[in-house]
Amino acid sequence: MRVNEAVNLNDKLAAFTDYFAPRTVATFNGHDIMVTKLRGEFAWHDHAETDDFFLVLKGRLEIRLRDRTIALGPGELFVVPRGIEHQPFAAEETHILLIEQTGTPNTGDPATAQLRRLV
Amino acid sequence: MRVNEAVNLNDKLAAFTDYFAPRTVATFNGHDIMVTKLRGEFAWHDHAETDDFFLVLKGRLEIRLRDRTIALGPGELFVVPRGIEHQPFAAEETHILLIEQTGTPNTGDPATAQLRRLV
Repeated sequence: MRVNEAVNLNDKLAAFTDYFAPRTVATFNGHDIMVTKLRGEFAWHDHAETDDFFLVLKGRLEIRLRDRTIALGPGELFVVPRGIEHQPFAAEETHILLIEQTGTPNTGDPATAQLRRLV
Repeated sequence: MRVNEAVNLNDKLAAFTDYFAPRTVATFNGHDIMVTKLRGEFAWHDHAETDDFFLVLKGRLEIRLRDRTIALGPGELFVVPRGIEHQPFAAEETHILLIEQTGTPNTGDPATAQLRRLV
């Protein structure tokens, strides 16, 4: 069995510049642990089969739900339950740790999802 | 369906002072998302059924494996694969985010495990 390496999140984030393009940095119980840079508005979507874990590392993230908005700064996390529509929005460049089941399309739809890459 | 609240990790950590006593701050796909304060040496143990996710928020954590030691500072994470013996050690007070399947005993053994509490 391969034992993972330590992962420095800032080093991983420094390796790319594009937004809304998650990079997998480790795996955990059938989930991808990812870092992502966000700026602007993502599509409204939901994931029928998985909760969606967001932890802000830098910047500010709004997670818009249909009935309210969750505002997160560094060191704040939120779990969007499966099946709940949400729209991430970041007014400034924002860095997050994201955890989803391996194979989850980031838009909720394989046809429009970003390819998930390693970094 | 109850939608979770935003979780401020520093606020949660400020609510208790004991070491090696994880507090659950959110749940995610059958996992507990926990914060823990560590200082000193924990028991050697493994978890047969779950990987073990550690992210350092403050301080320094050594995760001793049988063949090497993983050293982590703030913003660094490591996943101990299931079945791999490990011993957490922190020379100074260290704060971590920890994710394990709900119901996992923190020592690997229900007889010696800390009761898991909400905060």
